Amino acid sequence: MIEPRTLKGFRDFLPEQMLPRERLMEIARTVYRSYGFRPIDTPALEYLDILLGNGSEETDKQLYRFHDHGGRAVGLRFDLTVPLARFVSQHMGKLGTPFKRYQIASVWRGENTQRGRYREFMQCDYDTIGTRSVVADIETTLVMHDLLRAIGIERFTIHINDRRVLNGLLDKLQLADRSASILRTLDKLGKIGPQRVARELVDSVGLTDAASANVLQLSEISGTHDQVLTALDRLVGEHAMGREGIDSLKQLVEGVQAAGVPPARIDLDPSIARGLDYYTGTVFETTLDDLPTIGSVCSGGRYDDLTGLYSRQPLPGIGASLGLDRLLAAMDELELIETTRTSAPVLIPFFDPDRLSDYLRIASQIRAAGIGVELYPEAKRLGAQLKYANRQGFRIALIAGQEELDAETCQVKDLQTGKSVTVSLG
Amino acid sequence: MIEPRTLKGFRDFLPEQMLPRERLMEIARTVYRSYGFRPIDTPALEYLDILLGNGSEETDKQLYRFHDHGGRAVGLRFDLTVPLARFVSQHMGKLGTPFKRYQIASVWRGENTQRGRYREFMQCDYDTIGTRSVVADIETTLVMHDLLRAIGIERFTIHINDRRVLNGLLDKLQLADRSASILRTLDKLGKIGPQRVARELVDSVGLTDAASANVLQLSEISGTHDQVLTALDRLVGEHAMGREGIDSLKQLVEGVQAAGVPPARIDLDPSIARGLDYYTGTVFETTLDDLPTIGSVCSGGRYDDLTGLYSRQPLPGIGASLGLDRLLAAMDELELIETTRTSAPVLIPFFDPDRLSDYLRIASQIRAAGIGVELYPEAKRLGAQLKYANRQGFRIALIAGQEELDAETCQVKDLQTGKSVTVSLG
Repeated sequence: MIEPRTLKGFRDFLPEQMLPRERLMEIARTVYRSYGFRPIDTPALEYLDILLGNGSEETDKQLYRFHDHGGRAVGLRFDLTVPLARFVSQHMGKLGTPFKRYQIASVWRGENTQRGRYREFMQCDYDTIGTRSVVADIETTLVMHDLLRAIGIERFTIHINDRRVLNGLLDKLQLADRSASILRTLDKLGKIGPQRVARELVDSVGLTDAASANVLQLSEISGTHDQVLTALDRLVGEHAMGREGIDSLKQLVEGVQAAGVPPARIDLDPSIARGLDYYTGTVFETTLDDLPTIGSVCSGGRYDDLTGLYSRQPLPGIGASLGLDRLLAAMDELELIETTRTSAPVLIPFFDPDRLSDYLRIASQIRAAGIGVELYPEAKRLGAQLKYANRQGFRIALIAGQEELDAETCQVKDLQTGKSVTVSLG
Repeated sequence: MIEPRTLKGFRDFLPEQMLPRERLMEIARTVYRSYGFRPIDTPALEYLDILLGNGSEETDKQLYRFHDHGGRAVGLRFDLTVPLARFVSQHMGKLGTPFKRYQIASVWRGENTQRGRYREFMQCDYDTIGTRSVVADIETTLVMHDLLRAIGIERFTIHINDRRVLNGLLDKLQLADRSASILRTLDKLGKIGPQRVARELVDSVGLTDAASANVLQLSEISGTHDQVLTALDRLVGEHAMGREGIDSLKQLVEGVQAAGVPPARIDLDPSIARGLDYYTGTVFETTLDDLPTIGSVCSGGRYDDLTGLYSRQPLPGIGASLGLDRLLAAMDELELIETTRTSAPVLIPFFDPDRLSDYLRIASQIRAAGIGVELYPEAKRLGAQLKYANRQGFRIALIAGQEELDAETCQVKDLQTGKSVTVSLG
């Protein structure tokens, strides 16, 4: 006998978990498509050099890698961005630009599971490749907005910044040579607060106290969009790259408002850096107002060169990723998830063993009307069948014995209230 | 520079391939759910002993296996049946019976790719666990039927047999000890014809000429359901297991007809064996009348003991698997696939660079009405934008310049006919 078990860090999804996951993925697909994002898929396994080519030391270490039957060095993808870069480089001739894609697929990382992380998880990415237009930045923001509303969340904030503003300011402060480590440190603001960030900028990055204070001015800027943009104007001055960033933020804010997003849902936050080195323009994070501690449920940003490792043609783009697991946990906490184990609302108990054909015919008629219905497979006593119905979360039981069937009627029992009404089968 | 490439036997799916794949999976989910089948998911990676526990030599050889970071022997799943057996054994207390599940997920096999097989492919399985009732057999058949109709295929045949009839007959002929190899040989009838099967039954399985001829009588039975059942009655006689099979086939045929399936779509075919050893009752295959050579697009059967390797509680069930790749190839050949690369029907060209806010507002209104719309991100000349629209398969372009916008109108251009009408934006 083999003990049935799953690997550490891997999960089974039971129907009550999988039904809301499928619902969320369906909503994501619908919203992505409504903006013209198109589905693609790529293999779970890639040549190892493709995956390692992008590697930070950490992702390289976490990679599930082995040799296949042909002796090739291969690995399981650890994100959907590297496969996207490979895909776009390989098929650019057929795809054309602008290319808007989404991909919803599993990725694997041999991570330490103690931090509540999983070794297999789903990513829901969407990207617009091949354009520097701010329209793509606006649509990326609108997708985040529409997605959360479609799920039923109204109280959320999309935090937006532009790396060009940060980099412009650092250049003006003559700190451009250390911008990567400064931005990585700045990214910890939300977690460890301004004082510890200031200290780390001095101790680890090697800034002077004055320079560290200058950088941290960013975290003190807040207010309405106009107030933030004015404060940034003052800090950045005439620095060309910084100005570009500020102009882009202005257009972005105007654009999303033109599309109907209430201004309060957009927070211009000059201290948001995002840890990833490849972002070069707009960066985003999205938090839920009622659950601020869970962190960002949808993040992303603009990059100048997605495909540099595989192609000589530099391709700019912008993308974001929906945190499926985090969002589901949040929906659960906000009680936005229906607790049901069934995918069909109606159960027909198999009440009279001689009338199977009638039950099958009725079930088929209900399905033809677009309503899901399960026929209990065995003619057990009614109590046992109704217990099953309640346990699984069916809403309605459609009960019919010989008498009802002969009269072309049935009892419709509301399983929450327990009330029944007799209706005609016609 | 790293050459962008995929592994042999693995595929990228471009939008024009992925859109119909997603559509087919959505239809499958909708049909599965309409019968109360519920989604589950399991990890791509399992402990190697779980996967090998079921192995034929062939699947063991094809398994992608390696050691993970913790030194555990692991493998990528090669089907969804073994994970289902493990899953059901592990969670039976929570799941209860009857348990109806579907799972749509990738599997991996290091197969010889020369036969046009892939090393990564999607399976769409549905199973009913924990009941011997013929209702489950009837619903399994109805799902196949509804699925094909929902896709737009009307000319198809579901071929049905029962292993108990075959085994009963073999037992009566005193060939029960060789039933597995006889059934495997019989399964080749469609491919190599009765004469070569007869020869193989003698040469490889070791039957006498007379016994081989007796077995092959099965392949000569055909006709209406009543004719086939009468012929089987005669062959099987009073053999108990054989009679059980015949009675079950009778109920199955009656049941699916009660649910509205035209009799001509159901073919009782006593020679269908299905190669897999674990089938013990009803077996199914589904062929498309207009494409008989592509083989079965949906197959399955009843088994007595799914979980024997992991649990002492024997669990009967019945299930089937939709051949996604084969069905998509068939749909392509039957011209049931819309050739489009876009997920949204409407393109708004970015015509007047000063009116971005108007385009964003209009796009947002169209989306609110449930229609997908893409805004071209750059204010290029109109010709280039319409070329993009045509290439990607947009149906409508919504063109508005300063004049139209000031008058609160726009031009709606049908991209197939090239005709335009001016409509009010209200």
